Amino acid sequence: MPELRKDPVTGRWVIISTERGMRPISYEKRVKEKKSGQCPFCEGNEQHTPPEILAYRSNGSEPNSKGWMLRVVPNKYPALQIEGELNREGEGMYDKMNGIGAHEVIVESPDHNMSLAKMSEKHIENIFWAFRDRVLDLKRDKRFRYILIFKNEGESAGAALEHTHSQLIALPIVPKLPAEEVAGSKTYFNYKERCVYCDIIRQEKDEGTRIIEENPDFIAVSPFAPRFPFETWILPKNHSAFFEDAQKREYEHLSRLLKIVLLKVDRALDVPPYNMIIHSSPFFESTQDYYHWHIELIPTLTKVAGFEWGTGFYINPTPPEEAARFLREAPTK
Amino acid sequence: MPELRKDPVTGRWVIISTERGMRPISYEKRVKEKKSGQCPFCEGNEQHTPPEILAYRSNGSEPNSKGWMLRVVPNKYPALQIEGELNREGEGMYDKMNGIGAHEVIVESPDHNMSLAKMSEKHIENIFWAFRDRVLDLKRDKRFRYILIFKNEGESAGAALEHTHSQLIALPIVPKLPAEEVAGSKTYFNYKERCVYCDIIRQEKDEGTRIIEENPDFIAVSPFAPRFPFETWILPKNHSAFFEDAQKREYEHLSRLLKIVLLKVDRALDVPPYNMIIHSSPFFESTQDYYHWHIELIPTLTKVAGFEWGTGFYINPTPPEEAARFLREAPTK
Repeated sequence: MPELRKDPVTGRWVIISTERGMRPISYEKRVKEKKSGQCPFCEGNEQHTPPEILAYRSNGSEPNSKGWMLRVVPNKYPALQIEGELNREGEGMYDKMNGIGAHEVIVESPDHNMSLAKMSEKHIENIFWAFRDRVLDLKRDKRFRYILIFKNEGESAGAALEHTHSQLIALPIVPKLPAEEVAGSKTYFNYKERCVYCDIIRQEKDEGTRIIEENPDFIAVSPFAPRFPFETWILPKNHSAFFEDAQKREYEHLSRLLKIVLLKVDRALDVPPYNMIIHSSPFFESTQDYYHWHIELIPTLTKVAGFEWGTGFYINPTPPEEAARFLREAPTK
Repeated sequence: MPELRKDPVTGRWVIISTERGMRPISYEKRVKEKKSGQCPFCEGNEQHTPPEILAYRSNGSEPNSKGWMLRVVPNKYPALQIEGELNREGEGMYDKMNGIGAHEVIVESPDHNMSLAKMSEKHIENIFWAFRDRVLDLKRDKRFRYILIFKNEGESAGAALEHTHSQLIALPIVPKLPAEEVAGSKTYFNYKERCVYCDIIRQEKDEGTRIIEENPDFIAVSPFAPRFPFETWILPKNHSAFFEDAQKREYEHLSRLLKIVLLKVDRALDVPPYNMIIHSSPFFESTQDYYHWHIELIPTLTKVAGFEWGTGFYINPTPPEEAARFLREAPTK
């Protein structure tokens, strides 16, 4: 059974995932092993994944068979276990609980050579609908406090399989970064009685230098204080704390904007690996007034990982004004 | 002039380092360029670094010439600029200041093929003395609030040059992670009237399962909630907030313990790249009662960087009890 453990100094929770059975030296090997053999995410290989939780099928085909355009399956190597009780307990001064949670994979396309940037806007929109469907379902499980939706694209961004996919992790705790965003935006709201993200959008629209692209419902910017070169935020213009509360028109506009941004990133940075993370509100907290969901996109351009991990300190060699101009001017074809 | 910018939501400061002049795509290239040609850190190549700030020389040799056992030089590509005023100012809702700070390199040995693990205990001790000498000197500059001392070993851990070296960055702000450690240990102290790190040492000694190695003044443990496989903390047994306040005997014992731990890590994990960071107290804060300096060592074993960056959430496949046992039992020869 995996465990959730809390660092007694900083309060950060981590998953100690014994189930994955990874031992020293085997990390690289595991990635390589997965590359050989058949891709479990390709159409026709449905039997190589656990049974599907959700699939979008246009032709009335049977579950776990061909004929889908998008599939959601449990992660075959889950970091958390879906069944059981949390059993919060102490171990002397330390705190821990059972590693209960959901870990799902959203296979975004049946085509092995597809990428998010190359898909149609309509197909991207369906991925967002699938995210929403899963969030709504998992939110009913009262053990969960937060759902993390993210995409690792490319091996150096942490993807173990190259076939285009996203992941979803439902957690009984709120991870550190979302918790900090909620706390920070609450402090700002208490002081100003305005949403900090709404203020960011206003100032970015006034200044213009950090805007990459926008449409009626979304804006893509290089943030004022980015940790990484070409870090990009995509924000909904309408204030809302939850990704899953967006209007249909908003998902359409989000898909359109995301496709343009990804095409520009691929063109400007030579199809880089990247991480994309949906930042949405934790549940069971009244964040409606002050939290503002958004997407963060981080191309993997530098290798200086451990330093930032170890210090919480970031040196970014690319000013966001320059990154934004570069992406703004990049063609989408 | 580089800038320090603050994220308006989380309060995290970052350096936007324009001086380094890095542009898209050029990152990898820069590392490769540096590898060709002569190593500026080798004995005899002193003219390829900026003039030395400090050197330990045993034979009365001239500054910036051969005959040293350790040299401290300004970083040739500094992330911060040493001269100037901070000029704190707002830009609408955003906060920034000039990127003032020191960025120095500690060349740990004249020998290109030396490594920290292979050095004599005496030589390692001299590196700690050099760190201390530089901290004491830079602390007199009242613009600085924090000094970060760290080592990136190996290219995938962020080292641009392979010749063994550490870095020091003096900052006008306190980076996020040390700030969180100070806040967390203060909260614990207010509640318990004990240092959280002293309590950790006590519990680890009672349990024993996460101890890697110890001697009269230091203990090396796998922490209870590590973010990374084989993350290792080295803690002084005597409570003290500042690295630079240690007794001579303590530096001796630290050097002895560090050498053993590094030899074990090299043996158990096949000479991995790693990051080593000294966590010491910020200045101008009365942290004496509750903060406890220590060293964190993080081998670079996984590639899942961006996900952790983006979420603040960590999945660690190796339980610390298992990592500790593996290192405890690893031979040092």
